[in-house]
Amino acid sequence: MNVNQVYISEVGPRDGLQSIKSIMPTEQKFKWLKALYSAGLQEIEVCSFVPGHLLPQMADAREVVQYAKSLQAGTVLALVPNLKGAQAAIDAGADKLTIPVSASEAHSLANVKKTRQEMIQQVIEIIQYKKTVAPNINVEVGISTAFGCTLQGAVPEAEVIALAVSLAVAGVDEIGLSDTTGYANPAQVKRLFKQLYKELGTKAGAAHMHNTRGLGLANCLAAYEEGIRTFDSSQGGIGGCPYAPGASGNVVTEDLVFMFEAMGIRTGVNFEKLLEARKILQSALPHEPIYGMTPEAGIPKGFNING
Amino acid sequence: MNVNQVYISEVGPRDGLQSIKSIMPTEQKFKWLKALYSAGLQEIEVCSFVPGHLLPQMADAREVVQYAKSLQAGTVLALVPNLKGAQAAIDAGADKLTIPVSASEAHSLANVKKTRQEMIQQVIEIIQYKKTVAPNINVEVGISTAFGCTLQGAVPEAEVIALAVSLAVAGVDEIGLSDTTGYANPAQVKRLFKQLYKELGTKAGAAHMHNTRGLGLANCLAAYEEGIRTFDSSQGGIGGCPYAPGASGNVVTEDLVFMFEAMGIRTGVNFEKLLEARKILQSALPHEPIYGMTPEAGIPKGFNING
Repeated sequence: MNVNQVYISEVGPRDGLQSIKSIMPTEQKFKWLKALYSAGLQEIEVCSFVPGHLLPQMADAREVVQYAKSLQAGTVLALVPNLKGAQAAIDAGADKLTIPVSASEAHSLANVKKTRQEMIQQVIEIIQYKKTVAPNINVEVGISTAFGCTLQGAVPEAEVIALAVSLAVAGVDEIGLSDTTGYANPAQVKRLFKQLYKELGTKAGAAHMHNTRGLGLANCLAAYEEGIRTFDSSQGGIGGCPYAPGASGNVVTEDLVFMFEAMGIRTGVNFEKLLEARKILQSALPHEPIYGMTPEAGIPKGFNING
Repeated sequence: MNVNQVYISEVGPRDGLQSIKSIMPTEQKFKWLKALYSAGLQEIEVCSFVPGHLLPQMADAREVVQYAKSLQAGTVLALVPNLKGAQAAIDAGADKLTIPVSASEAHSLANVKKTRQEMIQQVIEIIQYKKTVAPNINVEVGISTAFGCTLQGAVPEAEVIALAVSLAVAGVDEIGLSDTTGYANPAQVKRLFKQLYKELGTKAGAAHMHNTRGLGLANCLAAYEEGIRTFDSSQGGIGGCPYAPGASGNVVTEDLVFMFEAMGIRTGVNFEKLLEARKILQSALPHEPIYGMTPEAGIPKGFNING
């Protein structure tokens, strides 16, 4: 990939919707997904394959994958927490799977009721399964709580990197680092991604940053400076832990696109079309707060955002 | 100054209050200023010396400077747009003057009804005056619209640097760059501050960033990476151009302090005491929105912010 180019993986339809109470109707999800792909987003995390009774928002995961696939517009990524989910996602036609593995043992037990070691075993089983039925499917892991954990506090950096190495050995294609809790700072982001690159080379994956303490874009910039070219973000900043009025969980796609485009780094995303997708999101979830400052402030005068 | 240390110039009492309609009573300003200095802020832009009928919020500028001086707690900085203002500020006892000079000719004419060249002349007159009555007073210029202008759009970088050089020749002690309009991006910040350093050496002054499009902290990080160690910010992010719900004008002091402290860069600011000052601001302006995400989200678990 060109150094002046980044790849944005839109996580709103999964990470964003997952933490929102209002359930977006399936038809609205279709409209939103179509608009997001049309805006130039090349990869969208469209849903997660978890039991519908646990997460009613994701009960239509199979239809969502099938619809996204039918658009033939970009990578259809699905989150799967276990082998059963992976089987369902592959059966529905997902192009790529993402598996959450916690760096914090405390978070791993609380989130998926498994130790980190047990999660690595799950990942190995998923990879073995997909090799037999769909060898071309890519498997990604986002290491959650990589920058700290609300349960255990600091997470030793050596443990994060050791976990990433174990996952690479297990056959995972891309291993990214997620700031699940909004604890990351730019110095830490640089240290960890530098080390990740050193150990994993081209298997070093996405920076998944949250904006809980306002540092989301600064952390993305730090990761960019260490050579990371894939970034997760969500339209309208939905998802994550929206503690504060005006705060958002995930990094806001609109602001991230503006930052990179303003720096002369191409995202492939058309800003005007991204705003059209934003309108669909807003009208589908009229009672949910939608974040992002560039959409409100507008593009600077005389500024050619897709120049 | 140590490389692992930054200097935060709090601009809330001037830049912040100036754009707020509710007038903060003088007694409340005193309480707030005392709390800000007590939190460890070493420099505060306490007011501006402009005609009271133009800016009723600043009608008590003289008393505010006198009170801030009486605390003997740190540098008392006052904004002055012209010689008359400078005379009043020096007479009141200010330690340091800051003069706004626009890089954009259109903004200069709109803001102070003078061309850039006429403003340089004003700066020269102010410096001549202060040399005769108070030679130890430092004179700073913040070059406004240095990263773009809502009136004229792009501002040529060469013009910004040429203006900075003229101001240094005129005898200004520190020349900083202000993103008045929230147009800056990290790549541009790096280019301009690198060039500023090259031309001005130790006279290169503060980074004054706005958060209008969410890039405030990312731009501060970029300036830090180019060697800038002085940053303007305002408590609660008040001031600037708050277009959006949750948006803020100036970079939020609380989030800036958190970012640097988390990176292991000392600010000298005690975070708990900064939150006490924030409470005073909130109770003095109960109907104004106060921004900042770290105060809402809290300091991460196990994190020693003033470590």
